Amino acid sequence: MRILTLALLGCGLCWGQAADECKPSSLNIPGAPYPCVYPDRRVAFRVAAPDAQKVQVRLGGTHDMTRGPDGLWTVAIPPQVVGFHYYSIVVDGAVVADPATRTFFGSGWDNSGIEIPEPDTDAAYYSAKDVPHGQVGQRWYYSKVTGKWRRCYVYTPPDYDANPRTRYPVLYLLHGWGENEQGWHTQGHVDFIMDNLIAEKKARPMLVVMDNLNAVKPDEDASLYAARGIIARRSMADVAPAPGGRGAAPAGGRGGFPTNWGGVFTETMLTDLIPMIERTYRAAPGRENRAMAGLSMGGMQSFLTVLSNLDKFAYLGGFSGSSGGRGGFDPKTANNGVFANAGAFNQKVKVLFLGIGSVEGPGTKNFSEELTKAGIKNVYFESPGTAHEWLTWRRCLNDFAPRLFK
Amino acid sequence: MRILTLALLGCGLCWGQAADECKPSSLNIPGAPYPCVYPDRRVAFRVAAPDAQKVQVRLGGTHDMTRGPDGLWTVAIPPQVVGFHYYSIVVDGAVVADPATRTFFGSGWDNSGIEIPEPDTDAAYYSAKDVPHGQVGQRWYYSKVTGKWRRCYVYTPPDYDANPRTRYPVLYLLHGWGENEQGWHTQGHVDFIMDNLIAEKKARPMLVVMDNLNAVKPDEDASLYAARGIIARRSMADVAPAPGGRGAAPAGGRGGFPTNWGGVFTETMLTDLIPMIERTYRAAPGRENRAMAGLSMGGMQSFLTVLSNLDKFAYLGGFSGSSGGRGGFDPKTANNGVFANAGAFNQKVKVLFLGIGSVEGPGTKNFSEELTKAGIKNVYFESPGTAHEWLTWRRCLNDFAPRLFK
Repeated sequence: MRILTLALLGCGLCWGQAADECKPSSLNIPGAPYPCVYPDRRVAFRVAAPDAQKVQVRLGGTHDMTRGPDGLWTVAIPPQVVGFHYYSIVVDGAVVADPATRTFFGSGWDNSGIEIPEPDTDAAYYSAKDVPHGQVGQRWYYSKVTGKWRRCYVYTPPDYDANPRTRYPVLYLLHGWGENEQGWHTQGHVDFIMDNLIAEKKARPMLVVMDNLNAVKPDEDASLYAARGIIARRSMADVAPAPGGRGAAPAGGRGGFPTNWGGVFTETMLTDLIPMIERTYRAAPGRENRAMAGLSMGGMQSFLTVLSNLDKFAYLGGFSGSSGGRGGFDPKTANNGVFANAGAFNQKVKVLFLGIGSVEGPGTKNFSEELTKAGIKNVYFESPGTAHEWLTWRRCLNDFAPRLFK
Repeated sequence: MRILTLALLGCGLCWGQAADECKPSSLNIPGAPYPCVYPDRRVAFRVAAPDAQKVQVRLGGTHDMTRGPDGLWTVAIPPQVVGFHYYSIVVDGAVVADPATRTFFGSGWDNSGIEIPEPDTDAAYYSAKDVPHGQVGQRWYYSKVTGKWRRCYVYTPPDYDANPRTRYPVLYLLHGWGENEQGWHTQGHVDFIMDNLIAEKKARPMLVVMDNLNAVKPDEDASLYAARGIIARRSMADVAPAPGGRGAAPAGGRGGFPTNWGGVFTETMLTDLIPMIERTYRAAPGRENRAMAGLSMGGMQSFLTVLSNLDKFAYLGGFSGSSGGRGGFDPKTANNGVFANAGAFNQKVKVLFLGIGSVEGPGTKNFSEELTKAGIKNVYFESPGTAHEWLTWRRCLNDFAPRLFK
């Protein structure tokens, strides 16, 4: 197989040798044969750019494509790890989405996406099965904190309508940096994961609320939005400063968040979101019926929010994101001393969950061990063989949700 | 103003003269200052393509952009008509979405979109207001007819959860050619339109079900899908035939639909969709509680389905799409003679609605007049100043929905 792989890489796509084995990605637009994935997880791309000088694919590095006589550019890139990956193409320096796939909001724009499939058996928990299905509803609400209409998505479990007197606990679940409130139901398959867990009686029926962690007050510079959630993409025009002042460059950029980072979202959540949810849905009240979790930056946000509001939440999860893992953790002072009294903390926080992909580094494991040393009960979950992407987070949710509200 | 316009067109964007007046489109990604719309509805675009030879915008024609010394290409194009428009950019022959906007599924792929705003007062009916809000839910269901899981969206009115014993009538509402089940709630703002109509007591609270009109049986050639709903985009690679047989070219292409066009969707709807909706939601049963409408190709589909199944539907709407308008209408034979007995037809079909944008031509008006001549009661609705796009269809829905279930 290695010989075959090298031979293929050496000659572009080598039509006819193995093209039939290359299966279109499940995220392609209907009818699009490319990108496709070979059994060994190499990926073949094809882009029509008849007059271009240079066309590249950006997925796990930048790969030059080869022009065919028909103006179609092709390349087969080395095997990719399983899971969901954003990617883009570069046409003579313009970074754009591949028009052959549906797009997915990440890194602040609508990228292309590709799913490198797991074996069907491994993917079953986030696939549609013949079980009762809940639904994900798009819900608009007005925020007094931001002075704007906001959109969230709410998963209601399969039995929600059939039990008009039942109240359900709520998991508030956040996306990551540069993503938005659509991530968990498009990239994450939250509905299939919950449907399957509930059908197997592994998780309690619950509501899952997915909001946008970007929140800016009316009197704040709008560029903070970009600094909080959207990178300044220097290679692209869309967030570059415009002559005349619109869209001025973010003050911080990635890694340079404003000092009040996270605070406005927490305020929006407590003031607007949670009351709207508990008014609109049959949500069970009280801290023991509220959980919060998020991925990456959304995990950081969850730690910030929950650890400052233990009167309102009893469950906390960070998927590839928390408040620790960078060393220097002092349980006496971290997060305003919330960990200082381990016994009190353990009584309040029913589940403290730390998830990570195995190839993301040891930070989260170290943090978990430091917490354990300080007497803080926590669950460490490691997704084997996955990176900082949605397959890690689907697996985290699949492990986390069954631990809630029990 | 005309002099100013010409002066601006003559020098590209002419920064500093009027840049402040150019308002970012509401469909841009967060923080993106371009594309923006001037008060006179000219539109300015900016694309980063440092190494390209030629960059163009395709919106109401193809417009060459001008390269600045910074590798940013710009252009201001002549005033556009109000409403929602798909558009794309062309970078050295590659037709792609502008990375500065959210994308919208139309013409079979995720295009860029721009909203040329109406005056706020005209847009109020499809805008978020401080009224009770329903929600749009994403619902998966298995189709025995197609042998696949399918996704639809269901609008439930604001009072749905508060009235657990109430059953609601249902409007089945279809997208157009090359679009999908997401069109009505992303491009169409169906939720705000219905929320506002219901709040003003102009429309009865109802469910609105939005499915995908593309349906292929398991034993059919998958390329029929492309022929039915997705154009063969000759300038792009994604639906071109692949060596080895995958994604073979559609048999028909646009205008060349297979002879059984529409039949599989009707069968899917009657066999799988309607029973699922009436099992899952509190839908009122019977023909007088069912309406069907659609835009463009979805209007054609609605006419095909309803006129062959008058025992199941009592309301029918075509928005820029119906079964007539091309001349040669013979009420004795058209649609298998369903119009032959006008009295019987009028008793069965409570509302027959024909909507169109005023600049789309006289076909629909002619059809309405032919129907009237044949004694068939119908409503003709003309949207002033709009074309074959979503603003026409939002207005059609806003006029059609209040006529239903009364």
